[in-house]
Amino acid sequence: MIKETKTSQVVNGVNVTDLVNTINLIQETPEISQFKFRATNKWQNGTYNQATVKDFYGALQEDDTRDPLVFNIDEPPILLGDNKGANPVEYLLVGLSGCLTTAMVAHAAAKGIELRSVESRLEGDLDIQGFLGLSQDVPVEYQEIRVSFKIDADISAAEKQELVEMAQKYSPVFNTVSKPVTVNVGLDNA
Amino acid sequence: MIKETKTSQVVNGVNVTDLVNTINLIQETPEISQFKFRATNKWQNGTYNQATVKDFYGALQEDDTRDPLVFNIDEPPILLGDNKGANPVEYLLVGLSGCLTTAMVAHAAAKGIELRSVESRLEGDLDIQGFLGLSQDVPVEYQEIRVSFKIDADISAAEKQELVEMAQKYSPVFNTVSKPVTVNVGLDNA
Repeated sequence: MIKETKTSQVVNGVNVTDLVNTINLIQETPEISQFKFRATNKWQNGTYNQATVKDFYGALQEDDTRDPLVFNIDEPPILLGDNKGANPVEYLLVGLSGCLTTAMVAHAAAKGIELRSVESRLEGDLDIQGFLGLSQDVPVEYQEIRVSFKIDADISAAEKQELVEMAQKYSPVFNTVSKPVTVNVGLDNA
Repeated sequence: MIKETKTSQVVNGVNVTDLVNTINLIQETPEISQFKFRATNKWQNGTYNQATVKDFYGALQEDDTRDPLVFNIDEPPILLGDNKGANPVEYLLVGLSGCLTTAMVAHAAAKGIELRSVESRLEGDLDIQGFLGLSQDVPVEYQEIRVSFKIDADISAAEKQELVEMAQKYSPVFNTVSKPVTVNVGLDNA
């Protein structure tokens, strides 16, 4: 449970005092919870392109203070690329892994559950006949994604299972992947 | 259109000869189109964790030849992190941007459409009340993602629009996000 103290209460490296303060602020002014996250992409050559992450909107203001984070995206040679970076479906797994982990760690912290380590392995099944347009019967998307967590903490197996449930319940990427989300794609007319 | 030549035909940096050969091989032996992509994740502290991408399965064999690709995942200070990397929902946009771009470039190449440049901007709306568990009425996932493409090529506006449609039709990440995909999350009992 969260202890009431004058100084900051930090559990699992999460400042629970700041977390509670954020929750209180949102309950007073719900609009501060609206965020807009962004990326830009520039095609380089073939299956190689580069994405950049920098600014975002949140807590009623634009934040442009981060240095640009640049990501190389490519395919392995067997998929006609040159291994200049992870491929797009691998980046999706990276985001999913991070989101489930952060949701688990933050909600464990809010409950006062101390974790020693959290590791996970992810695997997704993809039939590239969909990408190649070879079959209408083969889904273009991942057919299934499996995630396996290993948690080290002084808690019961049932409590570990509860952490796995919380991770799924509160992870934005998990819910974006497992539910249908509207993606509007168009041409920039500017 | 694809020209029949003895040497490799390369359009937009995509080796269309290899692409056609791959398609022919898949039509003879469909199982080679089954891929498994993977990531592992290790929590570091607070909202900071690290994902690694290395091996995958495809074309009937394991491929372990890549050097490990390591990704730092964190949140900005306003979301209780320390900016050690892009956040999970930003990685999802990175993957989406790369996948739409590669689908567009490869299918344009297969049609013999030469592209000079392809750029895109992505933005997704997220209300963090979902992540924080503050409201049952607020979706945990992205509420909407918008993607805007800028294409430089000697083609008509209608043909550019057709490329945007093909990108959506053939992109695995676009279809994973816009359709419901099963994600099975459990505990490693090993």
